[in-house]
Amino acid sequence: MSGTLPGFGVIIPAGGAGKRLWPISQPNHPKFLLDLTGSGRTLIQQTWDRLVPLAGADRMMVVTGAGHRDAVATQLPGLEPANLITEPGPRDSMAAIGLAAAIAQRRWGDLVVGSFAADHVIKPAPGTAGDAVADRVSAATMSSAADAGPGRASGAALAAGLEPEGAAGLELEGAAAPGAAAIGGGEGFAGAVQAAYLAAQEGLIATIGIEPTSASTAYGYISAGDPIGLVGFDQIRFVKAFQEKPDLTTATKYVAAGYRWNAGMFVFRASVLLRWLGQLHPEFADGIGQLADAWDTAQRGATAKRIWPHLPAVAIDRAIAEPVAALGAMATVPGDFAWSDVGDFDSVAQLVPDGSVQLGAGPPPVLEDSPGALAVSQTTQLVVVAGLPDAVVAVSDGVVLVTRRERAQGVKALADRLGDRV
Amino acid sequence: MSGTLPGFGVIIPAGGAGKRLWPISQPNHPKFLLDLTGSGRTLIQQTWDRLVPLAGADRMMVVTGAGHRDAVATQLPGLEPANLITEPGPRDSMAAIGLAAAIAQRRWGDLVVGSFAADHVIKPAPGTAGDAVADRVSAATMSSAADAGPGRASGAALAAGLEPEGAAGLELEGAAAPGAAAIGGGEGFAGAVQAAYLAAQEGLIATIGIEPTSASTAYGYISAGDPIGLVGFDQIRFVKAFQEKPDLTTATKYVAAGYRWNAGMFVFRASVLLRWLGQLHPEFADGIGQLADAWDTAQRGATAKRIWPHLPAVAIDRAIAEPVAALGAMATVPGDFAWSDVGDFDSVAQLVPDGSVQLGAGPPPVLEDSPGALAVSQTTQLVVVAGLPDAVVAVSDGVVLVTRRERAQGVKALADRLGDRV
Repeated sequence: MSGTLPGFGVIIPAGGAGKRLWPISQPNHPKFLLDLTGSGRTLIQQTWDRLVPLAGADRMMVVTGAGHRDAVATQLPGLEPANLITEPGPRDSMAAIGLAAAIAQRRWGDLVVGSFAADHVIKPAPGTAGDAVADRVSAATMSSAADAGPGRASGAALAAGLEPEGAAGLELEGAAAPGAAAIGGGEGFAGAVQAAYLAAQEGLIATIGIEPTSASTAYGYISAGDPIGLVGFDQIRFVKAFQEKPDLTTATKYVAAGYRWNAGMFVFRASVLLRWLGQLHPEFADGIGQLADAWDTAQRGATAKRIWPHLPAVAIDRAIAEPVAALGAMATVPGDFAWSDVGDFDSVAQLVPDGSVQLGAGPPPVLEDSPGALAVSQTTQLVVVAGLPDAVVAVSDGVVLVTRRERAQGVKALADRLGDRV
Repeated sequence: MSGTLPGFGVIIPAGGAGKRLWPISQPNHPKFLLDLTGSGRTLIQQTWDRLVPLAGADRMMVVTGAGHRDAVATQLPGLEPANLITEPGPRDSMAAIGLAAAIAQRRWGDLVVGSFAADHVIKPAPGTAGDAVADRVSAATMSSAADAGPGRASGAALAAGLEPEGAAGLELEGAAAPGAAAIGGGEGFAGAVQAAYLAAQEGLIATIGIEPTSASTAYGYISAGDPIGLVGFDQIRFVKAFQEKPDLTTATKYVAAGYRWNAGMFVFRASVLLRWLGQLHPEFADGIGQLADAWDTAQRGATAKRIWPHLPAVAIDRAIAEPVAALGAMATVPGDFAWSDVGDFDSVAQLVPDGSVQLGAGPPPVLEDSPGALAVSQTTQLVVVAGLPDAVVAVSDGVVLVTRRERAQGVKALADRLGDRV
């Protein structure tokens, strides 16, 4: 991949204990620091790997807690130390992303920022061209630089520089890279980010809606409305509504109706996010602004101490995405790649075909006559699973958890009840 | 319990790694040293506890390997140091029991000896009077002291002092202890041992046949023939044959035919056992005799070194019980108590109603929505089993084994294949 998206920066909020992955993911070793899928790279490293080609290493920013600062720095040697933002304390995603966006704006100018969780897994969907298309698309977007405030997008300025969806077949006769396909037409993660980037250039807050592979009850859903009006990019649509995690019946209806999974990926011009925050939560925005102003000065510590504890602990979904969608200024672009929030052991099992994950110094777990089972070990113990299909075995220094995949969502409740015994 | 059986000694062979209980039972911590049933006493301590009232502490002998000598001494403070016999090396049960019997004979005279494995569990059968009957029976047997060589028993001398089977109802009008029942009529372990003791006094080798509670394929079976002829004790019968561990169809037939489980408990006059050994395996008997002669002298070590490695490694069942049964000189008495050889995790699960066993310093395993499951831990880890009925979870410092009870017999094969990885 040769080119980055012009004026694009990335924020990676790296937090959350992942209690559904207890005892593997715990506050002192959260899942984003672990190679839960046995890929050789931890989740935050995988996140870095897929975003750094789009933003460039000097436009990558990570927001994490003080306890994970050193581990993140070690795992991401390409991250500039100044761009490793230590949260003054855990305050949920709005404060973390808002602060990072405000700092980014002050350091990098009013660029388009994408916020991507540090602990999700993305793989190319089977049969797609993958990210090879990114070169062509980023070259094309070099000519587009329209700025816009919150409000309905016109699309005219950008559409001029890009292939419209229906014209993809022409590529074969033109000078573009082989294997190229239109934006949003199955070209993987990078293509979806680029489509979201286009929507963000139009002044919208964009989110990627993942094509569901099941009627999952573990995810929220997005229903899409009309196209935003970017000529040739009808797949970029307004968000009609965000739906909470549904029950199975409702999830089945959502999938049948074409709703998509809400992956919590947001792409926006920094000024647009902060303007919406100011409009919807003025004191919050004011606090974030003061802290960002002080961040690169000697007043950082004192300002953080004064402001941070009083910021609301609220998710960006609740603070921004839902109200802005209701106001008609959220866009969604389709993501037709395999995605997982690695939210529970069932998700992990889907990502690990042989079911064997060793995160520590011990031998790889051995599974016999146990199709669909997952064994994750962080210890030197040999883990053996025999004759238990769909079992989940998770071994840490303090805990041996044995359950079944269909009870994976219930692990958080177990952790809440039993976690203090160890 | 007030009285011991006159002229009765006990041998407890304590050996065997118990590979079906891997990784909990291992060569360096075999199951007899563990409190596998959560009773507060290890298996060898429980064995001691139920036999010392019958023999007296100074007539208790344990034969074990050098590696377990210290642990046995620590666990059994009542055992006289001289009666803790260290096997010169692992040589199976005939050598161990033969040597112990020969040493016992030289130290204690030609008494009746019972050999009982160190790693079995016995509980009173539901609704029985338990061992309370022992007082009455042992008082009665004080008057019986008939000696006899191998051959058919007359029974006359002994029968005089004991209640015959059909007369149990008379107890209620007599002076005997309340709750008493006739020998072999459901009075538990002590009563069965005493009946075996009577048969041994008659010159027979006696074994206790356990009333089966299932058509188990994990045990060998005993078929009984005619009563040995002890008047009033028709339940003491000749062994017709010993049957190897059967398949399920055969086991079902055995149970229907009234066969009993072979618990490997043998009771015999020391001279009788050694005479049979001399008759069937003259060189073996000669070696055992020489070593026993040297045992309490300065020549013990040298003699052991010279003789022990050349003794056949053979089970007493094969060397003595089977051929002697064929020659018509083995007796069997019924044992109507709950017995288990604790041979695999399914057996352990049957003995632990709540399924939770902690052998180490950690918290007790927690089982939720997992009826019939068993979790045994030797570590400080909290073991949690949720939603897995009949699961087996066994956690040692080196291994976490997760399987199902119906695969319990297969654990030895797993251990053989995987044991060297840890």
